[in-house]
Amino acid sequence: MNDANAAPPATLEAIERRLRDSFARQTMMQTLGATLEDIGPGRTRIAAPIAPHVLQQQGFAHAAVSFAIGDTAAGYAALTTLPEGAEVVTVEMKIHLLSPAVGERLVAEGRVLRPGRRIVTVAADVFAEGAAHSGGRKHVATLLGTMVPVSA
Amino acid sequence: MNDANAAPPATLEAIERRLRDSFARQTMMQTLGATLEDIGPGRTRIAAPIAPHVLQQQGFAHAAVSFAIGDTAAGYAALTTLPEGAEVVTVEMKIHLLSPAVGERLVAEGRVLRPGRRIVTVAADVFAEGAAHSGGRKHVATLLGTMVPVSA
Amino acid sequence: MNDANAAPPATLEAIERRLRDSFARQTMMQTLGATLEDIGPGRTRIAAPIAPHVLQQQGFAHAAVSFAIGDTAAGYAALTTLPEGAEVVTVEMKIHLLSPAVGERLVAEGRVLRPGRRIVTVAADVFAEGAAHSGGRKHVATLLGTMVPVSA
Amino acid sequence: MNDANAAPPATLEAIERRLRDSFARQTMMQTLGATLEDIGPGRTRIAAPIAPHVLQQQGFAHAAVSFAIGDTAAGYAALTTLPEGAEVVTVEMKIHLLSPAVGERLVAEGRVLRPGRRIVTVAADVFAEGAAHSGGRKHVATLLGTMVPVSA
Repeated sequence: MNDANAAPPATLEAIERRLRDSFARQTMMQTLGATLEDIGPGRTRIAAPIAPHVLQQQGFAHAAVSFAIGDTAAGYAALTTLPEGAEVVTVEMKIHLLSPAVGERLVAEGRVLRPGRRIVTVAADVFAEGAAHSGGRKHVATLLGTMVPVSA
Repeated sequence: MNDANAAPPATLEAIERRLRDSFARQTMMQTLGATLEDIGPGRTRIAAPIAPHVLQQQGFAHAAVSFAIGDTAAGYAALTTLPEGAEVVTVEMKIHLLSPAVGERLVAEGRVLRPGRRIVTVAADVFAEGAAHSGGRKHVATLLGTMVPVSA
Repeated sequence: MNDANAAPPATLEAIERRLRDSFARQTMMQTLGATLEDIGPGRTRIAAPIAPHVLQQQGFAHAAVSFAIGDTAAGYAALTTLPEGAEVVTVEMKIHLLSPAVGERLVAEGRVLRPGRRIVTVAADVFAEGAAHSGGRKHVATLLGTMVPVSA
Repeated sequence: MNDANAAPPATLEAIERRLRDSFARQTMMQTLGATLEDIGPGRTRIAAPIAPHVLQQQGFAHAAVSFAIGDTAAGYAALTTLPEGAEVVTVEMKIHLLSPAVGERLVAEGRVLRPGRRIVTVAADVFAEGAAHSGGRKHVATLLGTMVPVSA
């Protein structure tokens, strides 16, 4: 992790404000009903319901939901390691679909694997929660990708 | 390509009916306003508008839109090479975001790189169309991934 | 993990014999000077020296070395979860190069993320060891991919 | 493609000299017996024999051979689009193994999908040639990845 991660609480507040402002501008997140649940240095968590309007043909959540919240959680994890005023864009992302996305909601946990000023390598895991999983959760997807910092 | 690609017109009609039925059950496609525009042996084309409810924080279409239609176009391309009654699931998918997704709509062209009974390797390219591209189109994303046939 | 991982010591010995026989037949591993250092349920470790004959133009170990031992470690990790007589083939593999591969040797740790009879999702991490890393080790690559069991 | 591709013959000669110098310093390429067969704007071709010392356990060329020449061909394709004095490093690379690598030699054709000053998106296809393919060639692997220009 880089110096930004050793920032004082005030800065973590600034990071959180920045991410929440950015998240609020993403209309796709609202369309999915997604919420930004947690922010920490080099990591974030985003959740979205498995709702009737986001399914694929077999009745599971569409892979695009796991992709959307996983990619966003990973990108915001990268953003927590960058200076004020930076934005990140996804260069490329890989997703493995491990199990059918059934249950009540999906939770994506994004993290930074390797910070950097030019390239940030990120990962995310997506879990399904709900009664179908007996109160536990099921690992439904894993993502691995590359973010690039850009000036806002 | 396998034998299915040498199938007579009647069979291509059956394939088209099967894909359109499946597509109609994908509520995510309706949420995105996506349409299945073309179906051929080993290839399909799906379009979606760059609408106000699917954007990311900078006002471009969210990467999840390109992923959703690219993954679906690639999966259906795989399905055209499989026998009646088969379904496919995405095992893993990679997406490269090449340019900002701006314009009026996105068009994903899916194709089969290597057919198979156990593993189908697929690809898709996503283009942005609209006045911003002077009547032409811009290559905004490329996808490469793995589909597995399953019994419906 | 599947039942194979709960197998008694005798079976783990059988697994080890099978992997060592297979490894000995891989002439590429000998060309790289690679050794199969450890085998456990769902995981293996393979090392290779950063030798003068495997470098790229800047004098670091070529990415193909990390790929070779990472892919092999991941494939063998998959093999430990499969019944006697099975082989695995790599369907696809992604590698991220995180840091220059400098030092005395590279160590790849492969593991199974999700076992299965048709598809095994695997990962590997590659570390550089040597004086350049002050007796510690540096994370130089991470791999994520798909293996498919085949009959030997 | 960028301006470098509109360069006069003298510059293409300079590019070729630069690539051949770099290639000669890659001891891994010599270990594989690889040769840099062709260089053009945004594309290169590298071949390597399917030799007894580069096999995997079933007697096919190890996936690392396809990776090595595919990654290098793609990286050099990127280099042809960059100014004098630049080097490139692989950030990440995906490889799909489409068919067993059997025959007399492997040929990798690298190309630039999207040039850029900060990120270059590249691809490569690897073909097996030889009597086993009746004088034709078999598509054995496809690669897709990300290169980053660095100062030499």
